[in-house]
Amino acid sequence: MPRSGDSLFQLTPKEGEPKHSKVAIMSRSSNGVVQALLTDLYQITMAYAYWKSGKMDDISVFDLYFRRNPFQGEFTIFAGLEECIKLMQSFHFSESDIEYLKTVLPSKTDPKFYDYLASLSANDITLSAVPEGEVVFPKVPLITITGPLAVVQLLETPLLNLVNYASLVATNAARFRMAAGPETTLLEFGLRRAQGPDGGLSASRYCYLGGFDGTSNVLAGKMFGIPVKGTHAHAYVTSYITLEDLKIKTLTSLDGSSEFNFIDLCLKYQKELAGVIGFLPDQVMAGELAAFISYAQAFPEGFLALIDTYDVLKSGLPNFCTVAMALNDLGYQAQGIRLDSGDLSYLSNEVKARFVKVANHYSLPWFEKLTIVASNDINEDTIHSLNQQGHSINCYGIGTHLVTCQKQPALGCVFKLVQINKKARIKLSEDVDKVTIPGMKNVYRLYGADGTALVDLLQDSSEVPPKQGDRVLCRHPIQESKRAYVIPASVRALHEIWWHNGKVMKPLPTLTELREKTKQSLRTIRQDHKRALNPTPYKVSVSSSLYTFIHELWLESAPIGELF
Amino acid sequence: MPRSGDSLFQLTPKEGEPKHSKVAIMSRSSNGVVQALLTDLYQITMAYAYWKSGKMDDISVFDLYFRRNPFQGEFTIFAGLEECIKLMQSFHFSESDIEYLKTVLPSKTDPKFYDYLASLSANDITLSAVPEGEVVFPKVPLITITGPLAVVQLLETPLLNLVNYASLVATNAARFRMAAGPETTLLEFGLRRAQGPDGGLSASRYCYLGGFDGTSNVLAGKMFGIPVKGTHAHAYVTSYITLEDLKIKTLTSLDGSSEFNFIDLCLKYQKELAGVIGFLPDQVMAGELAAFISYAQAFPEGFLALIDTYDVLKSGLPNFCTVAMALNDLGYQAQGIRLDSGDLSYLSNEVKARFVKVANHYSLPWFEKLTIVASNDINEDTIHSLNQQGHSINCYGIGTHLVTCQKQPALGCVFKLVQINKKARIKLSEDVDKVTIPGMKNVYRLYGADGTALVDLLQDSSEVPPKQGDRVLCRHPIQESKRAYVIPASVRALHEIWWHNGKVMKPLPTLTELREKTKQSLRTIRQDHKRALNPTPYKVSVSSSLYTFIHELWLESAPIGELF
Repeated sequence: MPRSGDSLFQLTPKEGEPKHSKVAIMSRSSNGVVQALLTDLYQITMAYAYWKSGKMDDISVFDLYFRRNPFQGEFTIFAGLEECIKLMQSFHFSESDIEYLKTVLPSKTDPKFYDYLASLSANDITLSAVPEGEVVFPKVPLITITGPLAVVQLLETPLLNLVNYASLVATNAARFRMAAGPETTLLEFGLRRAQGPDGGLSASRYCYLGGFDGTSNVLAGKMFGIPVKGTHAHAYVTSYITLEDLKIKTLTSLDGSSEFNFIDLCLKYQKELAGVIGFLPDQVMAGELAAFISYAQAFPEGFLALIDTYDVLKSGLPNFCTVAMALNDLGYQAQGIRLDSGDLSYLSNEVKARFVKVANHYSLPWFEKLTIVASNDINEDTIHSLNQQGHSINCYGIGTHLVTCQKQPALGCVFKLVQINKKARIKLSEDVDKVTIPGMKNVYRLYGADGTALVDLLQDSSEVPPKQGDRVLCRHPIQESKRAYVIPASVRALHEIWWHNGKVMKPLPTLTELREKTKQSLRTIRQDHKRALNPTPYKVSVSSSLYTFIHELWLESAPIGELF
Repeated sequence: MPRSGDSLFQLTPKEGEPKHSKVAIMSRSSNGVVQALLTDLYQITMAYAYWKSGKMDDISVFDLYFRRNPFQGEFTIFAGLEECIKLMQSFHFSESDIEYLKTVLPSKTDPKFYDYLASLSANDITLSAVPEGEVVFPKVPLITITGPLAVVQLLETPLLNLVNYASLVATNAARFRMAAGPETTLLEFGLRRAQGPDGGLSASRYCYLGGFDGTSNVLAGKMFGIPVKGTHAHAYVTSYITLEDLKIKTLTSLDGSSEFNFIDLCLKYQKELAGVIGFLPDQVMAGELAAFISYAQAFPEGFLALIDTYDVLKSGLPNFCTVAMALNDLGYQAQGIRLDSGDLSYLSNEVKARFVKVANHYSLPWFEKLTIVASNDINEDTIHSLNQQGHSINCYGIGTHLVTCQKQPALGCVFKLVQINKKARIKLSEDVDKVTIPGMKNVYRLYGADGTALVDLLQDSSEVPPKQGDRVLCRHPIQESKRAYVIPASVRALHEIWWHNGKVMKPLPTLTELREKTKQSLRTIRQDHKRALNPTPYKVSVSSSLYTFIHELWLESAPIGELF
């Protein structure tokens, strides 16, 4: 092990080679929960300094929140809470963790500190939070952690890690859902571009929560019960060269009554369809037809073909229709096609037009309702643009832009001390947006008569909750002149206690329930807060009493400067 | 389990609820290697179709490569290979994987397919690749996989997943290193903003490979032997309010000879320093001083303080100097300060100027060499801009922009079939950049007399390798007129065989060796390919014979169109 210990922040040569460990790459313990050691070193050094000065058990309150909504939007979906709660259940340092830390901390570190570390758990922590899947806004504490200062600090990094990406990608998924509309199927195809294996799994899980319908990630299907979807790749098509590559010629009809020479049947339809939808059989790629035939033989009831390997209109689509019509003779209905390149608006409309022609010619109404999947590097703006241009896509497969959140690849959640030993603390900043809202707070969402959320209100935890029908003064936390009276038709306390006294306090919703929760919560948010272009900011306010308190504490905490 | 089986791509209602699994979230098996099921569903459906048509054992060759360098740059660091090789070692489907797949595939799937799946391993796969840590360029196969078609396809998704992010973040790290220069310490602080726990670990590992000096991620330190670094957060400072919060007043001198009232000593220096570096003791925040004192008591040999909680020049820096001078009386040298906000150019220079004053006043030359760490949302452009403005920073802590690769959060590696049953295959596209280079190839890097890389050359594997001193014709793979003669002073075959016949064929380098390899490889690349602004593209060429072959196969594979 390297001994970086005596120079916690030194520039000079490392002592010893970083040993390339052959141990497993495991960010999580065998129960799937993240390890306590998945934290920043400064949490450990701070824990030591707190312990050394006898401050480690000071009862502290930290808020986890973000300062700005992602993607130039005005809302965020809160996700990752279940994983945070599970971290509470399993939080501890193993013997081997302690051994490792002994190599990192200075050699003069008091050995009793390691006994202290080994004794830690999250049993004295109270975690209250907004329910997972709720729409949330800047400055509102998503999670509030109360407990011994040193333990709470150790939890900072893993909590931020678990909430930041989960909420970001769930929000991204919700935005794609709003762009695509409720009727379009949305599939997450991001595994190959995610931040490693676990990044891919998190993406699948939280995109589903945010409103996607399924994923291509099989392991995510197995672990989380998310529907898994997919057909074939270009390589499947190019792996066939001619019809002679087909070793099996036949296919049995759906009712099992007879076996057909499926290739001959396809060739018959190829000729017929040339006239119906307009193509030249000698421009059709034989290898592509062979690939489609073999795929249909494997999945006669689930035939969906990728039609852009060579030329969509001259080869891919003719070959698809050919095989689909042959399948129809045997009692099977094909499912549709996928486009992975080109002008998706134009091509999807052309494809649809030819489907209509086939449907009319053969009196097969289902043929015009075939699925048209698009999957070429699609982002939120692409969908808005396709909507404007007009298209016939009814399913999107979305990878890179969804899981990497290209438009904004990080949500800036922070974790700030707001109270210690019952004294409220404030963190000042030259940037007033970064000033923390001090003290232990309650968060209320005030709704109008139609169930729409009007405003979020933070109060000191000692204040009386706002009541429906009351006239409630809601103030901007910083700007004196910004304030408004609101008469809520209903009021909801957003925070619930999820972990207390070493116990999970409420049943954790299933992933399907969380997905439903997200949908419902989004429905309570006004459309102008949700729209893609220039959305209206939702207001997060503080009570009059909290406003006064913030500003008193601010003056108390700031050094008096020179003349402004 | 959900039965999405009979509708592999259907829009209509899901049968059964996605069961919210309480199983562990584990993208990796207990040995830390990714699971075989971490793949896209279409790999499984294709495997079935291949198996069903008797094509599963067709010997196929796939190239893994990317088409464009990331970050508007002209180079990429190849990383992730070790994890790919380990995947080969462990690749198999478990009984529970098979049970799950039975719920996903159509009910009519031939049950013998599951026996086939259960029997699979990567023992018949050959994996050749560029060494990890090498600088690489578009179109060059980074990894070439040869083996039974169905198995190779199943490997596609995990291989892409393992290479894409690893190479992207290693490249990003290398760019930060070039921006900051070789003497500046670079620390990765990205855990809280990474794509979940494993994303954070991968970031730490591959940033180190790309040239960083350490990480804040303690688990990454334990697992990979990467030096871990860190001090304290703003919360540490705000957790103290007055000097009365200090329960311990004393500190023992380095030589152990005597115990001092450390608080009194600090207060003495506070008065003295006010005149030396210019500050008003009544504008200094007492809580911050208390925090620094307690931190110094815990880490007298490693005292580095975050000085921007209140006001850098009026409070943070005076408090740091106060404590550092008191430590000096006891024989300890402080390490330095960290700035996490504000104008980093101005502040770092102001800090440095005051360090120089202290150094001169007390004749302590080391005081002007104290570490100045900057860590506020820094990206590559920030560093270039700071270099232009002038600054005194000698260490950067970099998080969000490094690990999320904000500038381009995905590297678009692809995995393309280039040969099957000894027949070369080409994938055409309307975008000529997307046309694949067919066949089994060898890759050579041609160097000039000074050891600089001149050009990469792809040849058909049957061709004679280029030799040093020969005049080698290097052609653009697509554009007829672009070609050049090169006389290499030396030639290196870039690919090596890493996995064959179920065995790892070469010792895998340690992470430190990979980091060194990256450094060396970057040194062989001309500066104009590496610069941040408008870099010159490095040329990747094909032999004359491969050029001819590509274009013959192209014509053969493309349908003849209408008049152009």
